Amino acid sequence: MRFFSDNAAPVHPRVMEAIAAANRVDTAYDGDEWSGRLDGAFSDLFGTEVRAFWVTTGTAANCLALAALCPPYRGILCHKDAHIEVDEAGAPGFFTGGAKLILLGGAGAKITPDDAAATCDLIRNDVHQVQPAAISITNATEYGLVYRAAEVAALGEFAKQRGLAFHLDGARIANAVAGSGESLADLSWRAGVDAMSFGFVKNGGMNAEALILFRTELADEIAVRRKRAGHLLSKGRYLAAQILALLEDGLWLDNARAANAAAQTLAKAAPQRLVYPVEANEVFIRASAEEADNLRAQGFDFYDWGPGEIRFVTSWDAAGEDLERLAAAIAGL
Amino acid sequence: MRFFSDNAAPVHPRVMEAIAAANRVDTAYDGDEWSGRLDGAFSDLFGTEVRAFWVTTGTAANCLALAALCPPYRGILCHKDAHIEVDEAGAPGFFTGGAKLILLGGAGAKITPDDAAATCDLIRNDVHQVQPAAISITNATEYGLVYRAAEVAALGEFAKQRGLAFHLDGARIANAVAGSGESLADLSWRAGVDAMSFGFVKNGGMNAEALILFRTELADEIAVRRKRAGHLLSKGRYLAAQILALLEDGLWLDNARAANAAAQTLAKAAPQRLVYPVEANEVFIRASAEEADNLRAQGFDFYDWGPGEIRFVTSWDAAGEDLERLAAAIAGL
Amino acid sequence: MRFFSDNAAPVHPRVMEAIAAANRVDTAYDGDEWSGRLDGAFSDLFGTEVRAFWVTTGTAANCLALAALCPPYRGILCHKDAHIEVDEAGAPGFFTGGAKLILLGGAGAKITPDDAAATCDLIRNDVHQVQPAAISITNATEYGLVYRAAEVAALGEFAKQRGLAFHLDGARIANAVAGSGESLADLSWRAGVDAMSFGFVKNGGMNAEALILFRTELADEIAVRRKRAGHLLSKGRYLAAQILALLEDGLWLDNARAANAAAQTLAKAAPQRLVYPVEANEVFIRASAEEADNLRAQGFDFYDWGPGEIRFVTSWDAAGEDLERLAAAIAGL
Amino acid sequence: MRFFSDNAAPVHPRVMEAIAAANRVDTAYDGDEWSGRLDGAFSDLFGTEVRAFWVTTGTAANCLALAALCPPYRGILCHKDAHIEVDEAGAPGFFTGGAKLILLGGAGAKITPDDAAATCDLIRNDVHQVQPAAISITNATEYGLVYRAAEVAALGEFAKQRGLAFHLDGARIANAVAGSGESLADLSWRAGVDAMSFGFVKNGGMNAEALILFRTELADEIAVRRKRAGHLLSKGRYLAAQILALLEDGLWLDNARAANAAAQTLAKAAPQRLVYPVEANEVFIRASAEEADNLRAQGFDFYDWGPGEIRFVTSWDAAGEDLERLAAAIAGL
Repeated sequence: MRFFSDNAAPVHPRVMEAIAAANRVDTAYDGDEWSGRLDGAFSDLFGTEVRAFWVTTGTAANCLALAALCPPYRGILCHKDAHIEVDEAGAPGFFTGGAKLILLGGAGAKITPDDAAATCDLIRNDVHQVQPAAISITNATEYGLVYRAAEVAALGEFAKQRGLAFHLDGARIANAVAGSGESLADLSWRAGVDAMSFGFVKNGGMNAEALILFRTELADEIAVRRKRAGHLLSKGRYLAAQILALLEDGLWLDNARAANAAAQTLAKAAPQRLVYPVEANEVFIRASAEEADNLRAQGFDFYDWGPGEIRFVTSWDAAGEDLERLAAAIAGL
Repeated sequence: MRFFSDNAAPVHPRVMEAIAAANRVDTAYDGDEWSGRLDGAFSDLFGTEVRAFWVTTGTAANCLALAALCPPYRGILCHKDAHIEVDEAGAPGFFTGGAKLILLGGAGAKITPDDAAATCDLIRNDVHQVQPAAISITNATEYGLVYRAAEVAALGEFAKQRGLAFHLDGARIANAVAGSGESLADLSWRAGVDAMSFGFVKNGGMNAEALILFRTELADEIAVRRKRAGHLLSKGRYLAAQILALLEDGLWLDNARAANAAAQTLAKAAPQRLVYPVEANEVFIRASAEEADNLRAQGFDFYDWGPGEIRFVTSWDAAGEDLERLAAAIAGL
Repeated sequence: MRFFSDNAAPVHPRVMEAIAAANRVDTAYDGDEWSGRLDGAFSDLFGTEVRAFWVTTGTAANCLALAALCPPYRGILCHKDAHIEVDEAGAPGFFTGGAKLILLGGAGAKITPDDAAATCDLIRNDVHQVQPAAISITNATEYGLVYRAAEVAALGEFAKQRGLAFHLDGARIANAVAGSGESLADLSWRAGVDAMSFGFVKNGGMNAEALILFRTELADEIAVRRKRAGHLLSKGRYLAAQILALLEDGLWLDNARAANAAAQTLAKAAPQRLVYPVEANEVFIRASAEEADNLRAQGFDFYDWGPGEIRFVTSWDAAGEDLERLAAAIAGL
Repeated sequence: MRFFSDNAAPVHPRVMEAIAAANRVDTAYDGDEWSGRLDGAFSDLFGTEVRAFWVTTGTAANCLALAALCPPYRGILCHKDAHIEVDEAGAPGFFTGGAKLILLGGAGAKITPDDAAATCDLIRNDVHQVQPAAISITNATEYGLVYRAAEVAALGEFAKQRGLAFHLDGARIANAVAGSGESLADLSWRAGVDAMSFGFVKNGGMNAEALILFRTELADEIAVRRKRAGHLLSKGRYLAAQILALLEDGLWLDNARAANAAAQTLAKAAPQRLVYPVEANEVFIRASAEEADNLRAQGFDFYDWGPGEIRFVTSWDAAGEDLERLAAAIAGL
């Protein structure tokens, strides 16, 4: 009974079917018919013209985008708990050629324009100090909070004023949309986002994520960078097919809603234990080591998250008996 | 009727089955049971202890290995037509941090110890000139020739004498084994190879390649580099399952034999037109522009390969009516 | 009357003479007789065998060393106010190929083994998080404090226990020696330092700094990295001659003592205003904006250092009337 | 009696005087009055607005420029014997972050638009092959030939047509001007050059070279890259003063003329032995190993340059008895 990550979930049956349906000869790399439909599908979804690239990991999607948005000799503002800072093995440094992550604080891994401005104001505008070129946020955040459209727009306004590019790590953007009721457009390009990763693996996919460019003029550069980083798969149709399957009839949003609903089930089991409000599909609760042991003894898998805190992540397939059992177990602590 | 690349072929049914069988919850990244079996499976296959890593492209497999074998400030000897030089968008420069490819000639994209030695002898041993740290070969080569075990061993001996690491691009190593009758061990570690890519995508896989380390002490570094390059997929089990399926009962070798046999069918159709001996699954023939047009008018897809030459690549599924029709069409030119 | 940096001071007459004496034909790069004497001169000075390289900036000396001590995919522990973090334009990222600076706190820009250990203990030992490979300190620190030999040794012990390389930014190591009475050896290799920069430009030189390797086996790599970074000057003798002049008869230490003594003169003028103890040649005092304006109106140049603080740096040539006037002006605030 | 490199020559007395005159306190880095005069001095010299940066090596000047002109994922066309390819330890790969040097042939290390076009036409315009972004020439070339203004203009036209930036390695641009009678403007910006190194160290300087930007909008980026690469010296005035001294009253051109005249003296001693026409200050002659030994036995230093060839380089101070003796010795072979 695994609740440690939405990465552990199986692939959605409709994605499996789409992969099987793509199993015939076609042009290599991204010249196939499935890959050819991505730009249109995402442009429709976002309500604006975008360029879309499949890659296999969020790290690749994020860092390819960052490399196009920030030169090697400048910096990227992000939260100190951002995935790109904490959990990508220094990939931003590798992809950008050594750009610096300039770290911000903020509750629940959310950053604010005021904090960002304060940090920028401390940087002397000379050649000795690394000047920021971009700002990056994660929505839903690493702690399962959701930036509302107005919050993203305020950060976008800040970015514009300071001449910064704006990147969105959307590993769980589906959960953010499901959790906030905001539109994809309002959470991205209408708020000034230039490029984003759009997570599908945590959402029922197998190994396809998307990199979305709202600044479409970056597409040629991204295409080359993707190849150069070893991320241009020779049989790309199996990735594109996954994404198209998740986009079809809003499956991506249904899956996110299911995951979020499961998180609410857990949240309601112990409202007084919650470390953060549960706005997406992650639930952080206070639990002693004994309590954590108790839950594990009942067969539940999850992460310890610092002393006295544990984390559950729910997936598209979380509903059911296991979830109810876990909720009951939490309630019974 | 596509003969332009083995990348265009569909995925083998047994691979599809293995993917489906892996479609259940398991630990993320490479902590799952399938990934956990790779080291053992490849150690058995090679007859020596190896460390094996799944990645999704040959570019990633090759360049991660090269980054571990060559520091940024040194060079890698390879053929001027090597895939890493010609068709990977400068990926070796990206992964190594700017190491230099030092180019050699040689018929059919094969290099010899003598050529390599002559090139090395022209490099002054000082800090102004880039000193080689590694040598890389491709087997089967980019022109479908196969290095025999004795040839690889001679290069391995050269590498040892010069203090060079030895890398093998094995995008079509299966075809090399099938075409030469040599053993995997003789074509790799027994000949002194330190690290290699092992191609499965061209061999009936979907999107899993393997990076094999004979110098197992590099495994920790490779694991970090893989993550840092965005190549550690969160649902790795779907990659590991593909590879295990192709290893099982020698499916990889059966597939390579089928592809090679198809190439022989084409080769026999026009022996006088062959640019290179056909030793694996690639067939380069001399054909005028009119002859190429003629073949395309009959529905055959293939690459032009310089003036007056065209290339066919056969896949594991190439046997059948289309192949016979192509052979007849070639014979009839 | 400039007290904003020891970088602003003129070159010592004996250095000028040495440059003039070197002005004759000799072998290019570092093949000349002056460069050839550096290893011996520094080995004598440190009392152990070292390899010494001239470069023209502390940034180059520090970052070449760090590149040899830390692979691109790992990290370097340092103080959050360290020069390599704050004032080198991201040079460590450039030279190392993207290694991460892992930041520590600590009063007066000094770090302790306990703080370093606490930070390391928070890093999960997996491929997702950047693992430290080195630790770097600055002595004298960016705030003019001096690590004593025992403190450096404790950090060296920590580094050894954790398998970390140990780097010393010695832009003002001369002032540290002068200020502490400790020996160069005790502040470096006897305490476990692997490589250090040795600052001469702030000490009366023109444009020569030294990179000292106690791990002499790194010398070949450093020699290549220096060239590759454009830091192998073709007329190196003019750099080597500067260094030799400053080493001769302990001029480097005399100069540092003179600078430190001047700092003490200022410190004594307003002991109650000192932000940090004055242990080398930097004096940070509390002063209101009006007080700073007042001093500037009297012709003194210095840096503002955050709200309510100003910084004076004294040079080898600081003694004299200007210094006395400044001390009086400070006392009179 | 050293004729192996113009790097071995001493510093011109007027440069030494200028350095001495700069030996007083001033603002650090490039904030001093000498550095502040460089833009104007070079703008006057070239007859157009330029931005000028001192650095200490040609490698730094060339590679900082190339990094600004070519992104990491593209390539730079240059001659296979270009200094940036052969003698800079891979520095272009380091500074650019892995861009590729795309090598051309051509007699005497000169390239032509036709050759460059032929090479470009072989590069498939896709993401698999590295696309060129810049072209680089050296004038005078590594073999002492001089591109005339019309030749540079033709390459500039080619660059413009193909959308390539145009870089000039001017380590011996002074000798090229002296040797051709062409103007600096005609050999650079009027011919379409975007950025160039301007060599002063071989021309009587000590350790100052200049990086000249005709695309002045790149200045901010270059300033940061210079710092980040450790090439922003803290006492920059001693570099700026050297350059200003060499620019004053055309000393740079007088020195180049003197060096070129000395080369002509040698050339006339054995016209039938010349490997290349002598157009600047390098003389390559055919000489057997015995003949080379003979010359060395008479006390002359020079480089062997491949089998049966030797190289002499003359400096600004070459005239005099040694030169006459060498000419006689060559004539007497």
